[in-house]
Amino acid sequence: MYYYKEELINKIEVDQPDPAAAKVLQETLGGQFGEMRTMMQYFFQSSNFRGKDKPFRDLLRGVFLEEIAHVELVQNTINQLLNEAGGSMPGNEAADAAPLNEAIKHANPHHFIMGAKSSLPVDAGGNPWNGSWVYSHGNLIADMLNNVVLESTGVLQKTRIYEMSSNKAFRETLGFLIVRDNAHQNAFAKALEALGVEWGKLFPVPNYDINKYPECRKFVDMGYHNVQFNFRLDDTRIGEVLYGKSPSRNGEAFTVTPPPAGFPVPQLPDMPNEHSPGLVDMMN
Amino acid sequence: MYYYKEELINKIEVDQPDPAAAKVLQETLGGQFGEMRTMMQYFFQSSNFRGKDKPFRDLLRGVFLEEIAHVELVQNTINQLLNEAGGSMPGNEAADAAPLNEAIKHANPHHFIMGAKSSLPVDAGGNPWNGSWVYSHGNLIADMLNNVVLESTGVLQKTRIYEMSSNKAFRETLGFLIVRDNAHQNAFAKALEALGVEWGKLFPVPNYDINKYPECRKFVDMGYHNVQFNFRLDDTRIGEVLYGKSPSRNGEAFTVTPPPAGFPVPQLPDMPNEHSPGLVDMMN
Amino acid sequence: MYYYKEELINKIEVDQPDPAAAKVLQETLGGQFGEMRTMMQYFFQSSNFRGKDKPFRDLLRGVFLEEIAHVELVQNTINQLLNEAGGSMPGNEAADAAPLNEAIKHANPHHFIMGAKSSLPVDAGGNPWNGSWVYSHGNLIADMLNNVVLESTGVLQKTRIYEMSSNKAFRETLGFLIVRDNAHQNAFAKALEALGVEWGKLFPVPNYDINKYPECRKFVDMGYHNVQFNFRLDDTRIGEVLYGKSPSRNGEAFTVTPPPAGFPVPQLPDMPNEHSPGLVDMMN
Amino acid sequence: MYYYKEELINKIEVDQPDPAAAKVLQETLGGQFGEMRTMMQYFFQSSNFRGKDKPFRDLLRGVFLEEIAHVELVQNTINQLLNEAGGSMPGNEAADAAPLNEAIKHANPHHFIMGAKSSLPVDAGGNPWNGSWVYSHGNLIADMLNNVVLESTGVLQKTRIYEMSSNKAFRETLGFLIVRDNAHQNAFAKALEALGVEWGKLFPVPNYDINKYPECRKFVDMGYHNVQFNFRLDDTRIGEVLYGKSPSRNGEAFTVTPPPAGFPVPQLPDMPNEHSPGLVDMMN
Amino acid sequence: MYYYKEELINKIEVDQPDPAAAKVLQETLGGQFGEMRTMMQYFFQSSNFRGKDKPFRDLLRGVFLEEIAHVELVQNTINQLLNEAGGSMPGNEAADAAPLNEAIKHANPHHFIMGAKSSLPVDAGGNPWNGSWVYSHGNLIADMLNNVVLESTGVLQKTRIYEMSSNKAFRETLGFLIVRDNAHQNAFAKALEALGVEWGKLFPVPNYDINKYPECRKFVDMGYHNVQFNFRLDDTRIGEVLYGKSPSRNGEAFTVTPPPAGFPVPQLPDMPNEHSPGLVDMMN
Amino acid sequence: MYYYKEELINKIEVDQPDPAAAKVLQETLGGQFGEMRTMMQYFFQSSNFRGKDKPFRDLLRGVFLEEIAHVELVQNTINQLLNEAGGSMPGNEAADAAPLNEAIKHANPHHFIMGAKSSLPVDAGGNPWNGSWVYSHGNLIADMLNNVVLESTGVLQKTRIYEMSSNKAFRETLGFLIVRDNAHQNAFAKALEALGVEWGKLFPVPNYDINKYPECRKFVDMGYHNVQFNFRLDDTRIGEVLYGKSPSRNGEAFTVTPPPAGFPVPQLPDMPNEHSPGLVDMMN
Repeated sequence: MYYYKEELINKIEVDQPDPAAAKVLQETLGGQFGEMRTMMQYFFQSSNFRGKDKPFRDLLRGVFLEEIAHVELVQNTINQLLNEAGGSMPGNEAADAAPLNEAIKHANPHHFIMGAKSSLPVDAGGNPWNGSWVYSHGNLIADMLNNVVLESTGVLQKTRIYEMSSNKAFRETLGFLIVRDNAHQNAFAKALEALGVEWGKLFPVPNYDINKYPECRKFVDMGYHNVQFNFRLDDTRIGEVLYGKSPSRNGEAFTVTPPPAGFPVPQLPDMPNEHSPGLVDMMN
Repeated sequence: MYYYKEELINKIEVDQPDPAAAKVLQETLGGQFGEMRTMMQYFFQSSNFRGKDKPFRDLLRGVFLEEIAHVELVQNTINQLLNEAGGSMPGNEAADAAPLNEAIKHANPHHFIMGAKSSLPVDAGGNPWNGSWVYSHGNLIADMLNNVVLESTGVLQKTRIYEMSSNKAFRETLGFLIVRDNAHQNAFAKALEALGVEWGKLFPVPNYDINKYPECRKFVDMGYHNVQFNFRLDDTRIGEVLYGKSPSRNGEAFTVTPPPAGFPVPQLPDMPNEHSPGLVDMMN
Repeated sequence: MYYYKEELINKIEVDQPDPAAAKVLQETLGGQFGEMRTMMQYFFQSSNFRGKDKPFRDLLRGVFLEEIAHVELVQNTINQLLNEAGGSMPGNEAADAAPLNEAIKHANPHHFIMGAKSSLPVDAGGNPWNGSWVYSHGNLIADMLNNVVLESTGVLQKTRIYEMSSNKAFRETLGFLIVRDNAHQNAFAKALEALGVEWGKLFPVPNYDINKYPECRKFVDMGYHNVQFNFRLDDTRIGEVLYGKSPSRNGEAFTVTPPPAGFPVPQLPDMPNEHSPGLVDMMN
Repeated sequence: MYYYKEELINKIEVDQPDPAAAKVLQETLGGQFGEMRTMMQYFFQSSNFRGKDKPFRDLLRGVFLEEIAHVELVQNTINQLLNEAGGSMPGNEAADAAPLNEAIKHANPHHFIMGAKSSLPVDAGGNPWNGSWVYSHGNLIADMLNNVVLESTGVLQKTRIYEMSSNKAFRETLGFLIVRDNAHQNAFAKALEALGVEWGKLFPVPNYDINKYPECRKFVDMGYHNVQFNFRLDDTRIGEVLYGKSPSRNGEAFTVTPPPAGFPVPQLPDMPNEHSPGLVDMMN
Repeated sequence: MYYYKEELINKIEVDQPDPAAAKVLQETLGGQFGEMRTMMQYFFQSSNFRGKDKPFRDLLRGVFLEEIAHVELVQNTINQLLNEAGGSMPGNEAADAAPLNEAIKHANPHHFIMGAKSSLPVDAGGNPWNGSWVYSHGNLIADMLNNVVLESTGVLQKTRIYEMSSNKAFRETLGFLIVRDNAHQNAFAKALEALGVEWGKLFPVPNYDINKYPECRKFVDMGYHNVQFNFRLDDTRIGEVLYGKSPSRNGEAFTVTPPPAGFPVPQLPDMPNEHSPGLVDMMN
Repeated sequence: MYYYKEELINKIEVDQPDPAAAKVLQETLGGQFGEMRTMMQYFFQSSNFRGKDKPFRDLLRGVFLEEIAHVELVQNTINQLLNEAGGSMPGNEAADAAPLNEAIKHANPHHFIMGAKSSLPVDAGGNPWNGSWVYSHGNLIADMLNNVVLESTGVLQKTRIYEMSSNKAFRETLGFLIVRDNAHQNAFAKALEALGVEWGKLFPVPNYDINKYPECRKFVDMGYHNVQFNFRLDDTRIGEVLYGKSPSRNGEAFTVTPPPAGFPVPQLPDMPNEHSPGLVDMMN
């Protein structure tokens, strides 16, 4: 069973609204290689696990647990990017000139029609998240090779999305996730090393220079690219797979540690003009 | 952030393999009104919540947390229904007559091609789970009315699926979920009562007679139809909404309690013939 | 605006339940070349019509009007094929052996889970009807060539579906629709003749022998393959296009006539065990 | 069977072309909570109706009939918003600079590629209309609760879309439909009241102030928010459900009346440069 | 079996980057009436062919072979339109201001997130190519009528897309494909003439004036609108169908000829900043 | 450009009709890890290739060319499995008892409704092939890792499908493709070795025993698991990547060779009762 403490895994930077950035960041939430995919893929792989090699099952479930927190982080980041887009619109001002006319120009219109300026389970093109993306074939090697591709593609896409806006909320979250995808890529590659692969000079994929992404640096300084966070309330055997040198070409050790100290979940303001939340003068 | 203890929220009964039952039970996992939908819908609703009425946010997140455990329960039930379908097939017996020839006749063939006799994120018709099903419009009343329909439809579908097999693994899980859907229906209806609705003699929907479902009775005896389980490791204000009489026509109180004692997560056997898990003689 | 008289365009024959026949007949309702497609395609083509050639617009809308009645006819036929499948199940008999166990074997399970033994907007494979199928390009010749292909394919598919069951409800409806698709194929081909085509010995497509389908014969005797029914309450100029010889190689005239005398819409019995309609003892 | 009189249910205001407004208005036509969904949902619910409570069936079919006219209204509004976008382009001017270069910048490109500047069965994100959205479970209470959510969400979305353009064609149609969705919400809520619900101060959802939408006012003055239009050519028993006070907090009566006087269906000009209709010099 | 010579079927003009043009040209690649559809449709029709009339099978396969080259041509044109969009970005410049901020404004964001500024199997709205579009019903007349509609719609859409940009790479490819679609439309119409149709003054559809498209003229001068290219390494009986007058109203003969002399396949530069190809300093 | 010789890459064994086997074999044609996916994925990867490392581009295109022939092979195998299902039905026997009643019981009904007992671009669940499956990210390492997963999953699925029928047409094709997928897996793994990976004892995935699949053995004896067939009519530099030891744990060399001698493409009989091909007595 699953337990919760109301804390985000990284902080939400506050910056100007940027609906175009919110639109492309949806790829990281609901895209084919986004956080909903990783979350559900590792959920199915751990529930469908066969055989006695429990440390591998614990690895799959361990990454799944962190991915739930990643989904929550990206949801909150998109909400921050959309908040007050089109102005604050404090009341029912429908008779005025159209306040969202400009806001929707480069936006996903569903962010304003379905979400009340908030996140959706879709990708950057507006396509809904799709269960056929989940890879869970029950062959442990095939599953983990797919996981390596999934995490590598996650980093690759994020380094490209990073170039689409310099908004601070946008880049802080991307910087954090790039480092954590790298760590998860290392975790699955590490598990495949236990099964015989020598990755040589291949990892990480893509071959990016961490110094080019200032938002990544503080997390690298904290060693976040080489640790697996442990969200278990009971024992886990994940350490029987994850120990020794990182598969990345950095000569460092890969370890299991407690999760980071959490950050507050932002509280979004009322939007009477969007009828959200819609409780006005009813609870009195 | 999200924490885990390796326990199922209800037990998995062991019975004969039944691939046809596994196929239809997928509706309860990956269908439009299944557990993946409830899980993701309440996840988005709680992350996208606006305004200061935190007890409602705590309600949405609280039900979300239980739904993760429901998804895990149905995944394990489907795996039990598929386990050993087509015989035990202990080794690479490909040269023999086709052992899966009969098994796939009334089955979802993807249970054997993609899953290694295990669950998939699809519905009873094999359609993949789809993000467009998630309803999160940011209007609290509209969101909760949709949640009432969602939980009511969940019960309605489960009472129909129940008639499709008498397999014990199948009916034990359906029985548990029918009672819990009823409880969640009550929880959202309760919250709407706080906003002005008198449901009269309407609930529950459908108007089913609990005595017709023997698997439900033990859960009703434990009061599971009128409680909200609390999976929070920190404080929650959910009790400010959920208290007093249940909206169901039973005159009982609706309360918040700790989660039930857990049940072991089954360990599935190796299936060398399906190349699952595929580690044979490599770890030595 | 649209007006209604509660009458079906053809009769519903009563025969045994046949869920496998209901499943394949869905192609005729919600398939890529089914009645929902023709209905919506001609609706969009007539609303999006450009230019002054109103007789062609009247033709497109005229066929649209009949297609609404076709959709209703197939919905009622599928309901007839599903009615009492699995037995009459008059009460809440859930504790008994699974009454639907056999019924779902060759059925679309959604007929029993979503529909209460009733029709769905999906095709024979269970894929939902899809708006991308609608062809409305605004080029009248391209639109009408597509309509000819659509109606021809409708007949072609129905002659193949016809071979899948000898159920009387199933074949009566197919027989009627084959003849009417033929008439609509002729109508669009006729309009293209006005624009320059000589169909030679090509039509109808497919080149079927009406005498092989006994259910078709009575409609041919009434001339239904060579008439356009007129559902307009005001004037229509459709007759400026539809007159003279039929494009089919039968030497007959193609004319515009009033719709046929209608047939009663069946009333389906309660199904308490499926919680349908679910009003029991509440209206009292 | 279905009959037609060539009249729109409300007028089409003429204003400048606005392809960005056409794009977002598609949500109201082909979106998950748009008019095609309401039309098809009530069509299936009325055809699949079970039991003897005919007044409820007449209610479902009655609303269905009006929704066909709503679909036609939105189709014509989108066509008006697209008409002459990119200039009038009277002839084959392909050799000139690209006249559509600007027009497609904030547009749905399919409006120009597939439609000849005309409506499509898709939503604001370009996703095609999908049959899986139709809810028809045969349980009358569940069906009508879903209908309430559907109509409420329709209003909610329309009040948000309203803010995206001040174009007169756009807002006139939205204003009319907001009032009619409200009326249909009341109709289904009314029917549920007959089954035991007291809505208290909940309705309408969202809790909008009609005075903020000047386009709505004339329809409210005519009482359109509290009437059901009757499009039946034969008798209907809908009045046995729809009578007495409106569920909206306005103290007024809800009644059944004849449909409004109709408005002319616009005739769109030829577009030779788009090869629409494509009849040029062929009919002579 | 299939053989290859590294040559494009037409040349790629070099012009400025134009991501908005790349976005709409995707319709021609991955749209419902684009080159991937024609390629796969004729592939299935020729493999599924029944009966002894081999010249028709050779026709279907013959057009299929050219369509593979068309797909490759459009892929390369889209790549040219995207190349250097956002600037040349020669190194890892992530710390700088967001170079893609402007580029994505009117673009398909997946062109930059998934493709490394390169083509995707999607349409102008970003919807992925879909197998349900393939029409292969095994009735030769129905199949060829559908092919005529497919090729006619291809031309129609291309004449509309043509107006969306004056970019030379864009228009050169469209011009070539318009002429070849015309030829294929003629080829299938010709085959239908052998079966009885007189097209009269109908063809080509749409009724476009070739002189309006300067890019088309050189191909018309070479007769490309009235020839079928032959890509067979063995004998073909295609000439038994394709001979005599073209169905287009131009009085010319339709013939079978060898394919055109090929053009070089462009080599795209490295994009280190997009981690493409990602081999930097690894091959040494 | 692409050239063709009418020869299949392997032979079609003749055996009894088996529609259930045809249904599951569709996974190998139109499934997420089937031959259409590999064909289109390598097509896009080679057209979208960046940089000067032409041997890798030649590798991608080289495998693409063979995949076209694989698609054709599976199409023909499915046609063989469906041929004469339901009996030979030589004429228009519609009035008789329903000849397809039994045939569709465990079949994909679209094989009989759309295909004339012939192949479709769909998977074993009837879901249409989808462009979103194509992975072409322009990062060569990520692309090739994905290709390794794709080919490994192809083998894994085929070994599971193999167990579903002992039909000779079915198993001959699966046996051939298992060996060729293995070869392609080796080819991409080989290319990754050139970039630094030591696969150790990992390959092939899954770790299957070739001796269990008698149909594979003859191809292994011919060395087909360790060769790349060359379909180029001009020079290729593929040999600069593919040489030396195979990554599979068999100690053998991996080489480039000419394609195998071809096999005749079967000619399917007329099916007058299915109106296929529909030319009867028209060509005379």
